[in-house]
Amino acid sequence: MTVRAAVAGASGYAGGELLRLLVAHPEVEIGALTANSNAGQRLGSVQPHLLPLAERVLAPTTAEVLGGHEVVFLALPHGQSAAVAEQLGPEVLVVDMGADFRLREAADWERFYGSAHAGSWPYGLPELPGARAALAGTKRIAVPGCYPTAVSLALFPAYAEGLAEPEAVIVAASGTSGAGKAAKPHLLGSEVMGSMSPYGVGGVHRHTPEMIQNLSAVAGRRVTVSFTPTLAPMPRGILATCSAKAAPGVTAEVLRAAYEKAFAEEPFVHLLPEGQWPATASVYGSNAVQIQVAHDTEAGRVLAVGAIDNLAKGTAGGALQSMNLALGLPEELGLPLTGLAP
Amino acid sequence: MTVRAAVAGASGYAGGELLRLLVAHPEVEIGALTANSNAGQRLGSVQPHLLPLAERVLAPTTAEVLGGHEVVFLALPHGQSAAVAEQLGPEVLVVDMGADFRLREAADWERFYGSAHAGSWPYGLPELPGARAALAGTKRIAVPGCYPTAVSLALFPAYAEGLAEPEAVIVAASGTSGAGKAAKPHLLGSEVMGSMSPYGVGGVHRHTPEMIQNLSAVAGRRVTVSFTPTLAPMPRGILATCSAKAAPGVTAEVLRAAYEKAFAEEPFVHLLPEGQWPATASVYGSNAVQIQVAHDTEAGRVLAVGAIDNLAKGTAGGALQSMNLALGLPEELGLPLTGLAP
Amino acid sequence: MTVRAAVAGASGYAGGELLRLLVAHPEVEIGALTANSNAGQRLGSVQPHLLPLAERVLAPTTAEVLGGHEVVFLALPHGQSAAVAEQLGPEVLVVDMGADFRLREAADWERFYGSAHAGSWPYGLPELPGARAALAGTKRIAVPGCYPTAVSLALFPAYAEGLAEPEAVIVAASGTSGAGKAAKPHLLGSEVMGSMSPYGVGGVHRHTPEMIQNLSAVAGRRVTVSFTPTLAPMPRGILATCSAKAAPGVTAEVLRAAYEKAFAEEPFVHLLPEGQWPATASVYGSNAVQIQVAHDTEAGRVLAVGAIDNLAKGTAGGALQSMNLALGLPEELGLPLTGLAP
Amino acid sequence: MTVRAAVAGASGYAGGELLRLLVAHPEVEIGALTANSNAGQRLGSVQPHLLPLAERVLAPTTAEVLGGHEVVFLALPHGQSAAVAEQLGPEVLVVDMGADFRLREAADWERFYGSAHAGSWPYGLPELPGARAALAGTKRIAVPGCYPTAVSLALFPAYAEGLAEPEAVIVAASGTSGAGKAAKPHLLGSEVMGSMSPYGVGGVHRHTPEMIQNLSAVAGRRVTVSFTPTLAPMPRGILATCSAKAAPGVTAEVLRAAYEKAFAEEPFVHLLPEGQWPATASVYGSNAVQIQVAHDTEAGRVLAVGAIDNLAKGTAGGALQSMNLALGLPEELGLPLTGLAP
Repeated sequence: MTVRAAVAGASGYAGGELLRLLVAHPEVEIGALTANSNAGQRLGSVQPHLLPLAERVLAPTTAEVLGGHEVVFLALPHGQSAAVAEQLGPEVLVVDMGADFRLREAADWERFYGSAHAGSWPYGLPELPGARAALAGTKRIAVPGCYPTAVSLALFPAYAEGLAEPEAVIVAASGTSGAGKAAKPHLLGSEVMGSMSPYGVGGVHRHTPEMIQNLSAVAGRRVTVSFTPTLAPMPRGILATCSAKAAPGVTAEVLRAAYEKAFAEEPFVHLLPEGQWPATASVYGSNAVQIQVAHDTEAGRVLAVGAIDNLAKGTAGGALQSMNLALGLPEELGLPLTGLAP
Repeated sequence: MTVRAAVAGASGYAGGELLRLLVAHPEVEIGALTANSNAGQRLGSVQPHLLPLAERVLAPTTAEVLGGHEVVFLALPHGQSAAVAEQLGPEVLVVDMGADFRLREAADWERFYGSAHAGSWPYGLPELPGARAALAGTKRIAVPGCYPTAVSLALFPAYAEGLAEPEAVIVAASGTSGAGKAAKPHLLGSEVMGSMSPYGVGGVHRHTPEMIQNLSAVAGRRVTVSFTPTLAPMPRGILATCSAKAAPGVTAEVLRAAYEKAFAEEPFVHLLPEGQWPATASVYGSNAVQIQVAHDTEAGRVLAVGAIDNLAKGTAGGALQSMNLALGLPEELGLPLTGLAP
Repeated sequence: MTVRAAVAGASGYAGGELLRLLVAHPEVEIGALTANSNAGQRLGSVQPHLLPLAERVLAPTTAEVLGGHEVVFLALPHGQSAAVAEQLGPEVLVVDMGADFRLREAADWERFYGSAHAGSWPYGLPELPGARAALAGTKRIAVPGCYPTAVSLALFPAYAEGLAEPEAVIVAASGTSGAGKAAKPHLLGSEVMGSMSPYGVGGVHRHTPEMIQNLSAVAGRRVTVSFTPTLAPMPRGILATCSAKAAPGVTAEVLRAAYEKAFAEEPFVHLLPEGQWPATASVYGSNAVQIQVAHDTEAGRVLAVGAIDNLAKGTAGGALQSMNLALGLPEELGLPLTGLAP
Repeated sequence: MTVRAAVAGASGYAGGELLRLLVAHPEVEIGALTANSNAGQRLGSVQPHLLPLAERVLAPTTAEVLGGHEVVFLALPHGQSAAVAEQLGPEVLVVDMGADFRLREAADWERFYGSAHAGSWPYGLPELPGARAALAGTKRIAVPGCYPTAVSLALFPAYAEGLAEPEAVIVAASGTSGAGKAAKPHLLGSEVMGSMSPYGVGGVHRHTPEMIQNLSAVAGRRVTVSFTPTLAPMPRGILATCSAKAAPGVTAEVLRAAYEKAFAEEPFVHLLPEGQWPATASVYGSNAVQIQVAHDTEAGRVLAVGAIDNLAKGTAGGALQSMNLALGLPEELGLPLTGLAP
C-alpha cells in the first residue's frame, strides 16, 4: 500500500525533518509541498540537505494544492491548522504537527493561546495507555508537543502505578530548532552558542497544560506541573529532568519494575540499563527515546530523565509513527532507531 | 599593599582562570606557579591564552616552592590540599579551591569522599549571611564548589525569610570545564557538542551535602536537596534552576522584596528586572551572578534561577573575592563585573 | 543477495558510523563486531546511539572471529590492517577503512608513516576517473582518507580538463570526530568549543601524499599540494576550500561546464546551483557531497569548495558505496542522500 | 588625563565589546551611548553582560548627543559614519569602527560598496610599517576590518622582506559575531552550530581591497589576494590561513627571522614558539594576536597563520589601541593581553 502525502509548511524545521523521514519511508510517495513566504522557491534553496527533493518547487498552502492526497501533514503555526483541515474531506488522513487539536479542554486552550478552541483529535503519543486504540484507523491526528512527548514518556509509568505524588517538577533543555526557523535576535548563533538560559518560566509555557492533561489522565487525578524550559546551545534534542515525591513505600526495585513493564514491548523506548543515563546525542535524528529512572532516598523523590530528538520523535517521527498506526502499517515502518553520533 | 601569591595547580582550568584574574589584580604579584605532571614546562605551552606569563616555568608542587608567599592558592584534586596546607605557616593566607575544607560535618565528608575529614575552614561565599565576618582577617579559606555557589545564591533569600518549604529541587547545567582538564572519553568535543546529559543523579553528586549545609544554615532547619547536574555543550557556565514549594501565604511581591533586600548591597549579584532571565553568556568570564525569581501560583512553587561562570565566580573569582576580604582589601578589587558576550 | 559482514574496530567512530549505515542496508546482515580494549563489553555501553545493536557483545579482533564472513570491514589504527588482512582468504571482501593500502608508492608511505609499505589496493573513490572499473568485483578495497575524498572531488574536474595549474592550495576544516575517540587533552570539549586552530601545517599531514597521488593521476602530471587542515568546533564535517591558478584562457563558463560534465551522472555529488555554496550541515550523516566552483578573475584562480561528512562519505559511507560496487549491487543501495539538518 | 567618550551604535556587537573594554580603561569616562532602533531602552536589556552600565539609557544617534565629548566612537553600518563625522568638530577624536574611511582609492570603494567615496583617514593598525607615526596625535582614525587585521599581520613581515611572491591565497574562518546582531535566518543558532560554510567567494568580499591595499603598500608592488571567508560555529574569533609562493632562496630560518624582527617590540603580537600554532580560543576577548609561520618546502610556499578575536583586536580593541596612540597614552593602556579560555 503506497499513499501519497502532502506537506504544508515544507520550508520550516518540522516540515524539513518530516521530508527527511518520508524520503526513507517505503510506503509513502511525496506529493505536494507547500509554504507561505517561500512559495515559488526550489526546495533546494531553503532545505539544502534534502538532495533528492532539491528540484521540487514550493506551492502556496491552499486546499486546492493539498487536496487529492491520502495523507496531509500540517506543519503550520498554531491557529492555522483548523482552517486548512476543515477544507479537507473526512476521507483524508490529516496529521497536525501544530498545537491546535492537542488540548481537550477549551478553557486550557483559551487561557494559553487566547483564541477560540478548535477541538481535539486523537493524540499521537502511542506509548501512552490507550493511545494506540484511538489512533488505529483514525483520520485525524494531533501530534504532541516536543516537551510533552519527552516528559510524558519519562513520568507516566510512575503515575500509572501510583508511585509518585501528583506534583511534578520538570526542568527541560531544548535545542534551538524547537524555536523554529523565524529569525529572532535571541536565537542568533552568536547569542545561543555558549549559553544556557530559561524562558517561559513560572508555568506560562504553552506545553504545560498538555503535560498536565497527559499525566493527570494516567494518574487518575489532577497532577500539577512546575515546568521550566531552558534553551541549550545545540541544534536539536530535549533532555527532560523530571521528579516528584515518591509515594509511601516506593523502592528502587518497584520503580524499576514499573518502567520495565511500561516499556517492555515498546519499539522506540529504550529504558537504559541501570547506571547509564540518557544523552540527547544518542537519539539525534532517531525516533528512539532514552529513559532512565532513579529513587533518591535522601530527598524522597522519584527522578526520571528522558531524551528525545525534538524534531524526530518530538515532532516529525512521532507524526509518522502515528500515521503508520492510523493506516494500519507496521508502527516502526520507515522510522530510524539509530541516532547520529558523534 | 601588594602581596605575593603562589598558585599550586597552575596548569589546570581553575588555576588558569585564577592566573587570568590575578594578572589584572592591582595588589597581587604573581609568584611561584606549580604543577604535577606538567612541572618543568613553559606555562605558554599549557595555558597559551596567558600571554603575559607565557615564559614562566612550572615548578613542582612542594612546600619549599610555595613557602615564602603571603598568599597560596591551592587548585589541587581533592584530598591533596590538606597535606600541602599543613606545611604552610599560620601567617600564610591559604585559599583552597578544592573540596577538602568545605564540609563542616565529618560524616558528610566520609560518606561522599570516602576518606578522613581534614576539617573545615571559613567558607568563601561572602554573600551568605554571616560569611563576611568569618572571612575578615582569616588565614584559611575554603572556596565553595561551583554548583553550591550558584544554588545557594539563588535560593538563600527564600530560605532566609521562610518563604520556601525545606525540600529543594535543583537541576543545573554546567559547561564542560567543570569536569576539569583530564582527558576522558566522555568529555571529548565529539561527545559533548550537541548533547545534554545528566550525571551523578539521585543525590550522589559530591556537591549535594554542601548545598544542604548552606541552605539548612540559612533556613534554621534541615533542608533536603534533590540535585541533578547535567553536562551542557559549552565550555563554561552554570545555570541552576531551583524550586521549592512556596510557604503558606507567599506572594510574588513578598518574594521579590526578599530578594531585593538580600542583594541590595551586593556588588556582584545582579537581581534582574522582572521578566528578564539569567543567561550564562551574560556572566562569561565575570564574577557577576545573575538571579531571577518567580512565584508559580499554579504549581505553588518558588522558582529561582542563578547563572554564574563556574570558573570565575564559581571558583577563581570567588577565591579572589574572599582573598580581598581576608586581606582587608576592597571586595571588588581586580574582579570583572562585565561578561564576555557574545 | 544478502552478505554477512564483520566489523573490526566497532567501538570507534568509524566503526560506529559504519554500523549505523549497515543497520539500514537491505543486503547486509551484521555479523561479528570486534574491538581491542573494549572487547567483552555490550555495544550499547560504548555506542549508545545504536539501539538495535545494543545487546551485541564486542569480541576481540582475531582472524578466528572475523573469518567466515563474506565481507570484513577494518576500522583499525594504521599499521594493523595488513596483519589482519593477510589472515583472511582471497574470497573474502576486505574493506580497509584505514590508511595501509591507499598509497601506491612505497616511498610515500615510508616517508609519512615511517614503516614498511604493505602494498596498495583498489581505491574506493568511485567518482574518480577509472575508479569504478577497478572496484567492480574486487576483493580488496582501500577506503580513501576523509580529507582526500573532499579535496579530490572538489578539484579533479578542473585537473581532468586541464583548467588549473598544478599547484593546489587547500585549507580544510574538519570536525573533531576526524581525530578519533582516543581521549587527548587538546580534543576535550572545553578546548575545541569556540576554537579554530590548524595542525599538521606545512605539508606534513599524512593525507597530503594521497591528495597528490589522486590529483596527479587525473592531471597527467605532478600536482603539488599545499595542505593546511584545521580543527573546527563541530563533531563532524569537512569543508575543503581548494584553489589553483587558472590555466590560460579559462572562463567561468568553461569551468562550470567541466564540473557539470564530471558530475552529471554521479548519484552522490551535488554540484550546487550557481551562487549557492556548500555547508557541512547539509551533508550531516549523508553520503552526499556538495560542490561549488568559481573563477576569481582578479586573482586569476579556480576556486572549488567541497563539503562532506567525514565519517559518512569520508569513511563509512564511502566504504559501503565501494562495497556495493565490488559486490555488484546498485551503487546507492542503503546509503542516505539526505543530510540531518538543522 | 581622563577623556570623555561617546559611543554611537552601543547596542550592536562592536559597540558592546567597546563598552566592555572601556569599562576597564583607566583614562576613559563613558559618556553618551546611542542607538538607532534601540534608542530609549536600558542598556541592560540589550547588552545584559555589561552590568556596570545596565541602567544607562540609549539615546538616539545625533550630533547633539555625540557633541561635547573628547572622543566619539562610531560603530555604525557602513555609509553612516561620514554624515555623523562631518558634524563633529576637528578637535574631537573620531574613531570610525566602520568601513567608510579605510580605503584610499575611490575606485575601490565605489566598486565594492557602490556609493560615493567619503575619503580616507589614518589607518588604525599600528603594527604596520609607518602606521604609528600617522596615528600619533590624529583626530580621525579608520579602524581596520577584522579580516584585514588578521591577514595583514600574518603576512606583512614576509612581504616587507620580499620573501613571498605577490599572489596571496587566504582562507579565513570567522565566528558569527562578525556578521553582526541583525537577525537573519542563515545566522540562527540552529543553522550555524555544527556547520562550516564559505561566503563571499571569488574575490567579492568587501575586505578584499583592504587586504590588497595593506599588503601592496608593504611589498612595494601590487599584491593580488584570493580571499575566501568561511563562517565557523563559534561566536568569536578569526583564524586566517595565508600562503604565497616563497621567493627564490627563502629558507625557514630567513622566514622566522623576518617575523621575529617584525614583532620583537610589539606588545600585542605573539609570534608563537616553533611548532605551536594559533588557536582562536587563546585570544578570546583579548587584544593579542597569535602568529605562526612555516616554510612548506615541498609546495614551495610560505604559510602564515594568524588568530585574533574579531571583536577585540579585530574591532574594538584595535580601536582603543589606536585611540591610545592618538591621545598620547601608553599604547597598551586598558587592553587585555590574556584570553578567556577554556
